[in-house]
Amino acid sequence: MTEHATVKAALISQAIETPSWAYGNSGTRFKVFARPGVPRTPQEKLDDAAKVHEFTGAAPTVALHIPWDTVDDYAALAAYARDRGLTLGAVNANTFQEDDYRLGSVCHPEAAVRRKALDHLLACVDIMDATGSRDLKLWFADGTNYPGQDDIRERQDRLAEALAAVYERLGDDQRMLLEYKLFEPAFYTTDVPDWGTAYAHCLKLGPKAQVVVDTGHHAPGTNIEFIVATLLREGRLGGFDFNSRFYADDDLMVGAADPFQLFRIMYEVVRGGGLTADVAFMLDQCHNIEEKIPAIIRSVMNVQEATAKALLVDREALAAAQRTGDVLEANAALMDAYNTDVRPLLAEVREEQGLDGDPMAAYRRSGWATKTAGERIGGQQAGWGA
Amino acid sequence: MTEHATVKAALISQAIETPSWAYGNSGTRFKVFARPGVPRTPQEKLDDAAKVHEFTGAAPTVALHIPWDTVDDYAALAAYARDRGLTLGAVNANTFQEDDYRLGSVCHPEAAVRRKALDHLLACVDIMDATGSRDLKLWFADGTNYPGQDDIRERQDRLAEALAAVYERLGDDQRMLLEYKLFEPAFYTTDVPDWGTAYAHCLKLGPKAQVVVDTGHHAPGTNIEFIVATLLREGRLGGFDFNSRFYADDDLMVGAADPFQLFRIMYEVVRGGGLTADVAFMLDQCHNIEEKIPAIIRSVMNVQEATAKALLVDREALAAAQRTGDVLEANAALMDAYNTDVRPLLAEVREEQGLDGDPMAAYRRSGWATKTAGERIGGQQAGWGA
Amino acid sequence: MTEHATVKAALISQAIETPSWAYGNSGTRFKVFARPGVPRTPQEKLDDAAKVHEFTGAAPTVALHIPWDTVDDYAALAAYARDRGLTLGAVNANTFQEDDYRLGSVCHPEAAVRRKALDHLLACVDIMDATGSRDLKLWFADGTNYPGQDDIRERQDRLAEALAAVYERLGDDQRMLLEYKLFEPAFYTTDVPDWGTAYAHCLKLGPKAQVVVDTGHHAPGTNIEFIVATLLREGRLGGFDFNSRFYADDDLMVGAADPFQLFRIMYEVVRGGGLTADVAFMLDQCHNIEEKIPAIIRSVMNVQEATAKALLVDREALAAAQRTGDVLEANAALMDAYNTDVRPLLAEVREEQGLDGDPMAAYRRSGWATKTAGERIGGQQAGWGA
Amino acid sequence: MTEHATVKAALISQAIETPSWAYGNSGTRFKVFARPGVPRTPQEKLDDAAKVHEFTGAAPTVALHIPWDTVDDYAALAAYARDRGLTLGAVNANTFQEDDYRLGSVCHPEAAVRRKALDHLLACVDIMDATGSRDLKLWFADGTNYPGQDDIRERQDRLAEALAAVYERLGDDQRMLLEYKLFEPAFYTTDVPDWGTAYAHCLKLGPKAQVVVDTGHHAPGTNIEFIVATLLREGRLGGFDFNSRFYADDDLMVGAADPFQLFRIMYEVVRGGGLTADVAFMLDQCHNIEEKIPAIIRSVMNVQEATAKALLVDREALAAAQRTGDVLEANAALMDAYNTDVRPLLAEVREEQGLDGDPMAAYRRSGWATKTAGERIGGQQAGWGA
Repeated sequence: MTEHATVKAALISQAIETPSWAYGNSGTRFKVFARPGVPRTPQEKLDDAAKVHEFTGAAPTVALHIPWDTVDDYAALAAYARDRGLTLGAVNANTFQEDDYRLGSVCHPEAAVRRKALDHLLACVDIMDATGSRDLKLWFADGTNYPGQDDIRERQDRLAEALAAVYERLGDDQRMLLEYKLFEPAFYTTDVPDWGTAYAHCLKLGPKAQVVVDTGHHAPGTNIEFIVATLLREGRLGGFDFNSRFYADDDLMVGAADPFQLFRIMYEVVRGGGLTADVAFMLDQCHNIEEKIPAIIRSVMNVQEATAKALLVDREALAAAQRTGDVLEANAALMDAYNTDVRPLLAEVREEQGLDGDPMAAYRRSGWATKTAGERIGGQQAGWGA
Repeated sequence: MTEHATVKAALISQAIETPSWAYGNSGTRFKVFARPGVPRTPQEKLDDAAKVHEFTGAAPTVALHIPWDTVDDYAALAAYARDRGLTLGAVNANTFQEDDYRLGSVCHPEAAVRRKALDHLLACVDIMDATGSRDLKLWFADGTNYPGQDDIRERQDRLAEALAAVYERLGDDQRMLLEYKLFEPAFYTTDVPDWGTAYAHCLKLGPKAQVVVDTGHHAPGTNIEFIVATLLREGRLGGFDFNSRFYADDDLMVGAADPFQLFRIMYEVVRGGGLTADVAFMLDQCHNIEEKIPAIIRSVMNVQEATAKALLVDREALAAAQRTGDVLEANAALMDAYNTDVRPLLAEVREEQGLDGDPMAAYRRSGWATKTAGERIGGQQAGWGA
Repeated sequence: MTEHATVKAALISQAIETPSWAYGNSGTRFKVFARPGVPRTPQEKLDDAAKVHEFTGAAPTVALHIPWDTVDDYAALAAYARDRGLTLGAVNANTFQEDDYRLGSVCHPEAAVRRKALDHLLACVDIMDATGSRDLKLWFADGTNYPGQDDIRERQDRLAEALAAVYERLGDDQRMLLEYKLFEPAFYTTDVPDWGTAYAHCLKLGPKAQVVVDTGHHAPGTNIEFIVATLLREGRLGGFDFNSRFYADDDLMVGAADPFQLFRIMYEVVRGGGLTADVAFMLDQCHNIEEKIPAIIRSVMNVQEATAKALLVDREALAAAQRTGDVLEANAALMDAYNTDVRPLLAEVREEQGLDGDPMAAYRRSGWATKTAGERIGGQQAGWGA
Repeated sequence: MTEHATVKAALISQAIETPSWAYGNSGTRFKVFARPGVPRTPQEKLDDAAKVHEFTGAAPTVALHIPWDTVDDYAALAAYARDRGLTLGAVNANTFQEDDYRLGSVCHPEAAVRRKALDHLLACVDIMDATGSRDLKLWFADGTNYPGQDDIRERQDRLAEALAAVYERLGDDQRMLLEYKLFEPAFYTTDVPDWGTAYAHCLKLGPKAQVVVDTGHHAPGTNIEFIVATLLREGRLGGFDFNSRFYADDDLMVGAADPFQLFRIMYEVVRGGGLTADVAFMLDQCHNIEEKIPAIIRSVMNVQEATAKALLVDREALAAAQRTGDVLEANAALMDAYNTDVRPLLAEVREEQGLDGDPMAAYRRSGWATKTAGERIGGQQAGWGA
């Protein structure tokens, strides 16, 4: 294949998982704004996700969040997805929305609460068995708000115990993706606050435990692409939760706040051999004030554009400049790819797949927004955090 | 008076305003945890606030939040407060919890929404007339989430127009306190993001417009006491919204995250002549996981302890070391006061006022928590953001 | 003119001032790395600056730093510049590199040190008279390292007094540009730490006092384009010190760390009518490990590219989307310009001016680096901080 | 022993290592201020360090920095120290102050530079053999300033190779302490930027490789005590480099910027069993504008005060409150110790050791500053970064 063809092939093969909750209402602690046409059931979320995949060709899987996507029959839900060209992706556990979890879940000082949380995690693996999902994504809201509130070290012991029990339960083809987050909702300590903590736990658990990098979960100034390169080198990068932010964990569309950072991250993915199925590329974001489906389409496109630029880096020229210590030439080799307008290339890729070159315009023309706003009347709209 | 007596007198005269919403439930976007005994009405909030004042002797006023504290008869509410030894304090406007405000309130691109928001602000002044409140506290959730979403400069023009209309409406003894905040709920631009913006607007409005410093609303690394000193020098410090945080605007108990910072702030207040009625000392915090009344008592005590330490600074020794450029001696003069255990002094101050020296213990003994948990059954608990 | 022609005309008219010190050696507190061919005199710095202008056509003025560029005859230096197609630009004062300034300069507790610092500032205005420079750029390293070290408020009084004396001395066509910086070298308080402080001082001084925005001098998360928009609205944006950073004030090449931020800044400049001579576009950066002249050429190009993208924004489409509150369309209108590859357009602009379309390649071919490395042997290389 | 006696015994046994470079001149990139009486030789630094130990009784060891403390005969230097009641402590390697290291040392793209750096590290172990030092402290200035400048992953490979070679060379009783730092002097990537990276390398090397926590080397908002607790739990906390900061790595006196944070760190040390010889308590700070010896004495005292408070925590009351999930009581148990004025206790501890209760006053009375200012005339003052 020519280089151009290789780039195109890589772009075609890239799959981006969209999260079921991004199709529902969301907001901040100040206000959740409702939107006409928002899905009321897991099935309606899948209907919307199918539209994203229909127009981008790049979003074939959908992550579930339990209990937000609780159904009686998960195999039926998987079939519902399949009928729409989708597959169910990672199962996201939730141990933060019950009154019992006020002081934590698997790290809670009381054994009974820890047991309840663990049971939920194990139930999520049951769901994975039914849906055929590979990945269990674990993010814990656990932590403390005040110095002294609980014992930092004992909480680690409790966490390790719960993770071990879940790991034990995983099937041969299942993985545990452990997510870290600097803060929120815990405001003093968080029990998995950084990649180092997640990595240390994964190391002890075994190869099916992998770290997931949420791009919005770092301290100001953290070099995320360094973490990506390091985890790939260690064989411990399980995937991404993509989103972006200017301040704290704001859940803006990936690439919206710092497209250059997203490009640098994707460059390390490409360079580190991470553009494979072993690294899950997932969106984890909310669309508080903007239309949801177009925002998700835009997000998928943003990841694609960053990937395209990363693939276009002239690796030989870059390596040559690096070897000779030519700072400006090496930087220029990287920037040349970043400064390229890859939108025509991606339009071409889409058209070769029989898609419209402009997914946003195609979606707008489809009338789906009007249709669902008219049909999805009554009932309870799905809501993040609800 | 001896110096000791002067310090005591200053401590006795310090009044700290507690916010009605701190008595209700609160939480993060992830979860609001309900608590037994939480007030269901503005009156019950005042009952709780009266307890804080009863045991501290230092919290005689209560800030209202409209519409959370909406009643039919505000004069009656003021009388209700008076009967419990309280006065109604600042009125806090809320232009962020209706669907109309998705893209802002007084800065919204549509004139109709701006008018609606302005009408609410003017209605708040009507309430002030009825309650006898001096201060209208304005915090705007206005801003944008994405670059390009709206025009930064036009939003400033709209903001200026609304502020001018409100200023015009203020009575002779009323003030407008303009609050700034770096971010949240807006995630790209905030229309009043820093003290400079608030100050510039206040300057144009006139002397009744003053800046309010919320201790949790700054970028990481911001030197808040510098802002306090500067605003006092400019005659534009209207008051404080006290709370604390380790990360973003976390609304932890004031003094909980960085007691030394609180001391430095109070030192600048004392040094700048701000320990007067012209500077409103208000709490603005939430108690998501801890008991509310004891948390508020602790917060009042934390402000008192920081103030006591600030008053104990040997200003002559400090000035002498500063004049001679003795860095270590000057620092030591300040630290000597900070390192002093002022709890015995404050217990003495309380006992001289006929109070228990230990407000936390006295409250615990009072049985109020048990009583209210038993009595406040049914109805809708008051909730921040609800 | 067609729109395309308007954009080109704006790009041709944009002038970017390069700083004399960027041509000398620089480094961190850990190490200053010497480079062959680095200038040894102000004249040699001008020779290098002439090369930057020769190949970019966009860098016709050079900022001086006193005392680093001290010469006996400033009129002769100006003539030397003119002979090379250059004009002398802003004069940068330096009150931080003498032992007397350990505790500050114009804010120092001792009157004698303040007087010495003020005399230096006034001497800089004398130099401006001789060079024909319009702008006096004032950045003060003043501040404190420890709480209590000096009195925050008195330092403001001293600062105001010095600024007033300098303002008084300015000629009719001269300006004072006051720069702010969050921290460094002062590590606790800085006497002009933010735009609000600079703005407040400028307001009191008068219209010839303007704020200068150094893009590297803000707290993490600060929205710089908001400050730019606000200062333009207030008529107080005197200019920029361009550079970039990932962490603190790192002095990387402008646009290197966050090209999207630079674009957003330039968009607010264009939108606010700041693309005029009243706003000075200056570089203020160091090239610690990379070649200096090519780094400066790259920096000039980066500003041009960001400006070109800002000029290409479809303002009508943007305004229409903003008016209707279409968050995604408004964002897309801005991003469409950002995602455009403007390098061909800028090559065209250069070629129409008779320049090489690729200034970096043209400079490399010129042999200037080899020539100066061979000729500039012996003597003392110019050094930032030296 | 009574609890009081246990606390005292722990305080008496605590040893704090002072760094030889803190006795020399230091500064920022803007200016190094010279001081009368500053040492000119390693021996004079030891003379000063002996004074700190004489008056505090708590600083019996001194860290060396090579090449700043290069001597012909290290055994003789160790004897010189012993004669003054001191022992030589950690040896700090320096691979950042030669022109060869412009692009890094052990991570440099060229093998020859890496070899040179490695040879220096091995030579440092030779010095340890001669001085009897246990710890080799490795901090690398390695990193990059611009995206693309070098390959992140290859640099990790090079780093791992160098560390392995050094580890191999260590004697049975010698350790390698690997330090991490967010940034500076590298401004885009740093090759050991966080505890996770240091930990991952140490794990692979073996038990003699331990992580050292420099309190100034973290991203804003990082919870350092969490890292301390985690590393102790993992058996990988080799020691501390103490200092403090308000912004970036400012090297202020430990405890000066956030005494509460220092207390929380020391609490985790005490709670995690880290108050033993296995954890090295070292200062690593500069005294740019203040007198050096008194600043070091103050720093030692600050660590002692934080340790005393940490030891005074009523661990049983704390654990009881934690077990029952009483957030406010648990926090209060910790704060009670923090709010205690431990200065009288420490004075008592000192007096029982035959020392003056007030080391600062005793040092001032000793006349050492005047004596050394008079005697240390001529020669080259020792300087950090020089």
